[in-house]
Amino acid sequence: MRMIELIEKKKNGVELSDGEIAYFVEGYTKGEIPDYQAAALCMAIRFRGMSGRERAVLTDRMMRSGSTVDLSSLPHTVDKHSTGGVGDLTSLVVAPLAASCGLTMAKMSGRGLGHTGGTVDKLESIPGFRTALSEEEFLSQAKRIGMVLVGQTANLAPADKKLYALRDVTGTVDSLPLIASSIMSKKLAAGAESIVLDVKYGSGAFMKTEEDARALAEAMVDIGRANGRKMAALVTSMEFPLAPQIGNTLEVEEAVKILRGEDPAGWGVREVILRLTASLLSLSLGMDGDGAAKKAEDTLVSGAGYKKFLEWIAAQGGDVSYIEENRFERAGVKKVIVSPASGWLARMDTEAVGTAACLLGAGRMKLGDQPDLTAGIVLTCTPGGKLEKDQPIAEFYTSDEKKLADAEAVFLGSLGISDEKPILPKLIAGSVR
Amino acid sequence: MRMIELIEKKKNGVELSDGEIAYFVEGYTKGEIPDYQAAALCMAIRFRGMSGRERAVLTDRMMRSGSTVDLSSLPHTVDKHSTGGVGDLTSLVVAPLAASCGLTMAKMSGRGLGHTGGTVDKLESIPGFRTALSEEEFLSQAKRIGMVLVGQTANLAPADKKLYALRDVTGTVDSLPLIASSIMSKKLAAGAESIVLDVKYGSGAFMKTEEDARALAEAMVDIGRANGRKMAALVTSMEFPLAPQIGNTLEVEEAVKILRGEDPAGWGVREVILRLTASLLSLSLGMDGDGAAKKAEDTLVSGAGYKKFLEWIAAQGGDVSYIEENRFERAGVKKVIVSPASGWLARMDTEAVGTAACLLGAGRMKLGDQPDLTAGIVLTCTPGGKLEKDQPIAEFYTSDEKKLADAEAVFLGSLGISDEKPILPKLIAGSVR
Repeated sequence: MRMIELIEKKKNGVELSDGEIAYFVEGYTKGEIPDYQAAALCMAIRFRGMSGRERAVLTDRMMRSGSTVDLSSLPHTVDKHSTGGVGDLTSLVVAPLAASCGLTMAKMSGRGLGHTGGTVDKLESIPGFRTALSEEEFLSQAKRIGMVLVGQTANLAPADKKLYALRDVTGTVDSLPLIASSIMSKKLAAGAESIVLDVKYGSGAFMKTEEDARALAEAMVDIGRANGRKMAALVTSMEFPLAPQIGNTLEVEEAVKILRGEDPAGWGVREVILRLTASLLSLSLGMDGDGAAKKAEDTLVSGAGYKKFLEWIAAQGGDVSYIEENRFERAGVKKVIVSPASGWLARMDTEAVGTAACLLGAGRMKLGDQPDLTAGIVLTCTPGGKLEKDQPIAEFYTSDEKKLADAEAVFLGSLGISDEKPILPKLIAGSVR
Repeated sequence: MRMIELIEKKKNGVELSDGEIAYFVEGYTKGEIPDYQAAALCMAIRFRGMSGRERAVLTDRMMRSGSTVDLSSLPHTVDKHSTGGVGDLTSLVVAPLAASCGLTMAKMSGRGLGHTGGTVDKLESIPGFRTALSEEEFLSQAKRIGMVLVGQTANLAPADKKLYALRDVTGTVDSLPLIASSIMSKKLAAGAESIVLDVKYGSGAFMKTEEDARALAEAMVDIGRANGRKMAALVTSMEFPLAPQIGNTLEVEEAVKILRGEDPAGWGVREVILRLTASLLSLSLGMDGDGAAKKAEDTLVSGAGYKKFLEWIAAQGGDVSYIEENRFERAGVKKVIVSPASGWLARMDTEAVGTAACLLGAGRMKLGDQPDLTAGIVLTCTPGGKLEKDQPIAEFYTSDEKKLADAEAVFLGSLGISDEKPILPKLIAGSVR
């Protein structure tokens, strides 16, 4: 088999065989196929696409390029994956709700990059919380309390890691089959039996339109099913931040408020949390939609989810009194941002809001940066809400006063204030079952 | 400027600016842009194409990546380029005809590879002939006798050399703008004021259809004109070998016969030679079509071309008596091939015929091979001619008896013998002016 023949086939719109895909993934991971041939193939895939079979095999092969997690000793293993957004703290709440209902969420999460946050960074804002556990600790905690959450191990789908780095510098990121197989290779390697995807669309998401997000959701559901997993997906809006607090400590604080029964009025976070939890219950336990929705809500309202959250934090070495006593710290420099005009908050460039938080120190502009866990933004306006000129709309928190100006400029640039009351995009645009 | 932005633009169908094309060619030639990014761009170009302006600028920049030949001190400089074929000895005759008519053909030619021959190899079959001359020798001979032919210098369009090697292993050879700019960058660097292209189509050519050949001819003519050259092109058939003798010494022998007034009946070589010569005369001297055609024919028939040929051979150190005394040598092992069936010779897979000659030792299977200059094939049939079973149709010449079997199998596989008298494809399918 020769790599040039694979490139020619794909370029000419011919499907690659299972053996050819295996040859490519293995050869590239081992360094036997050079970057320039892999780049040419990725660009040909960008133009020609891949069939469902090709996508499933590519994902399977990338998954098998490294270690995989064996969760088969645990009951009702589930995973939840978001394609990334701003103020998306759902994992912090969905995981304890699911565990309270008898599911096992033994999960690997990522760190934030650019305008999107990462669950591992958020959890590390809790004093003492450990996100690096041994395999034995990981499995025994999952068995004992039904949940555990760690950072990704280095050897999870190394083929994807290498291929993604290449795609990033060769203009081949925007290929649906390559995006879907990249995400799913890691999800499959992480071992859960049932997986619910939260595929975001809108100004703060990688997929800008609902249609693109739905296509990605369908592609990933198909890949997971072809590889023997139970799959479902929601398509949800990231036209606005999901919750009003953006930053690491700030999002843990918000999650704790929700777990204690609060609902940030006008924001979508609680609804998405409950829908994701209900989806996991339906998928893993076979519950009908109404029953699953009621069970999810009851678990939140009863405080069972909050109790599980505290049990989880304690299990991974976190300081539970820090949570219970609300010792959430905000960075020392605060600035109140006011509305530049009167009208309705019709739009936000949510990616720009995330970037503003990042500029305040809350995120990483590049790999290797260390985020300021106490920095971020608290929005005091709501999507679609009425604004008066000079009314406070946000609080900025940073440890470095010099960062305020750039962040404010980016944030103000993100606002779309209209003279008419806007019709907001649907929060949950659809689902794939 | 960042290479990733160029790739994204081209991928999305946006034209690259002159500055971006210059950045790519210079950065890639210097090794500052890695192969994997160049490969991704080439594949994006393969799918998106390039505008006329992009092609002209790419060619100009590749031309300027190395040394260029300054022929401005010489009168009426012309060049002739064939896209490659089998039995295509036209340069050996067109050059002395043109020089006899007052044009200056100071030309660089290539070596053969695979099924196609190269003029430099053919000339080196003449004892003493030197194809490596100093720049001073090159220019002074051109001035003195109106013609000179050497091998390509190493530093001619190095950007093209590097890019072609990459395209060859990344499935990006079959891109019209990249093919056209590759050929034209070297032609422009070689310095002639007027250039006539012979773009081949058919079973023995890179372009398999007349339409593709015409598109390539038009693209190259446009590039040349945009860069200030006088341009014309013929689109000619390579559905059969152009002449009956295939091999290095064999083609010099055939050229000498034509220069002495012979016409291999049933073969297209003499007609193509005269049309190419007439095109050069029209283009460089502004002669009308009929006048140019008559002048080309008169020069051949009068023996003036042959006289110029002998003068040329002598000027580059070749043994003129070898030509005059017909001391052309054929390799020691001869085999007569007979027709496997009765009927008409309706088709030849001309690439396979070229490959058979190559297998006999006449060509290079890979770069660095040393061809056997006396090996090759003499066809004793004609395109479209009547055949009886077991009638001799070809003579094979090789220095190694073991090579006969493979070559014969490939050759016999190339024949298409039909029960009905075939209609042959037009030899000169069209022209671009």
